Amino acid sequence: MPQGKPATVPDDGMTTRQRRNRPLLIVHTGDMKGKSTAAFGLALRAWNQGWPIGVFQFVKSAKWKVGEEAAFRALGRLHEQTGEGAAVDWHKMGEGWSWIQRGSEEDHARDALEGWQQIKRDLAAERYGCYVLDEFTYPMKWGWVDVSDVVDTLAHRPGHQHVIITGRQAAPALIEAADLVVEMTKVKHPMDAGQKGQRGIEW
Amino acid sequence: MPQGKPATVPDDGMTTRQRRNRPLLIVHTGDMKGKSTAAFGLALRAWNQGWPIGVFQFVKSAKWKVGEEAAFRALGRLHEQTGEGAAVDWHKMGEGWSWIQRGSEEDHARDALEGWQQIKRDLAAERYGCYVLDEFTYPMKWGWVDVSDVVDTLAHRPGHQHVIITGRQAAPALIEAADLVVEMTKVKHPMDAGQKGQRGIEW
Repeated sequence: MPQGKPATVPDDGMTTRQRRNRPLLIVHTGDMKGKSTAAFGLALRAWNQGWPIGVFQFVKSAKWKVGEEAAFRALGRLHEQTGEGAAVDWHKMGEGWSWIQRGSEEDHARDALEGWQQIKRDLAAERYGCYVLDEFTYPMKWGWVDVSDVVDTLAHRPGHQHVIITGRQAAPALIEAADLVVEMTKVKHPMDAGQKGQRGIEW
Repeated sequence: MPQGKPATVPDDGMTTRQRRNRPLLIVHTGDMKGKSTAAFGLALRAWNQGWPIGVFQFVKSAKWKVGEEAAFRALGRLHEQTGEGAAVDWHKMGEGWSWIQRGSEEDHARDALEGWQQIKRDLAAERYGCYVLDEFTYPMKWGWVDVSDVVDTLAHRPGHQHVIITGRQAAPALIEAADLVVEMTKVKHPMDAGQKGQRGIEW
């Protein structure tokens, strides 16, 4: 991303530096791969800045994202040992469950809501500099977490906390509230040619 | 990305497992952020699989991607010390130069071509399991590296080597040759609201 000149300079009384350092709400949406991987790529930059990272995975099974999890846990340990980078906390909602294979919908809704309540507490406490709320669009889509509560909480979060939300079909109110929204769109996918997912690529 | 059923099963004589483990040529293109970050997110999965990673940055200045570089160098050192994950080699074409600020176009073209010749040697030697050719679309676009040489070399690369190429305006022949192509498209960008790039987000 080259550094460009802003299209407009808002009349908001802020200096360029103040505006530049405003914490961002980022949404990665769309139907194609790259939403979560790009979020974790951003988190590498946060790690290098020394900003504590909180990952909250609203995942489907324990298999997903194991590559990122192993690498970030390693980076977190490295921080503990050497002080390099930043601390990393990796949370999985309802650790080990699968939305598809077991547990009632009520269990999943409760797990997701508990996860969001934890995120609210962490935001209020300014616990992390970078939050990855992975696949968090789904609990909102399914009505388990209230979109307006999310938007309102994020709009009033204190301090300097970047938040990245991933998942398909992001709610319009969330897109409206976000500073940066990327849509990952498909040009070509191996499944079109009969290829299935594979380790090291999908997880 | 949920595991889905392939739309078609090709009549290519391969088993599902063989087809599944075919190495991929992946292209991240489009005008929006997320192309490089998603490539580095994928490289985290490769690291966790124990596949040696070769990053080749066709970058504009020493400032870009410092977050990813620091994190991957740390992961590479961790591998050396503990055996966890995989080795990481981080190459910068024409280390330290800027395409914009100094050096003639001939110098840059030569640097880019030397980088590609190195990649060809590494592919022939099956040196890495995962290649990140960051912003490699530009040397092709500017005619410094021949697209048909890239496509032909990648089509005939031996062994199990995944290759991820990032950058805007990927050549049609490259898209045609790729297994997976994601386009990062803009829904909303902070520059629209007068905000400039910032550390921890852009680099």
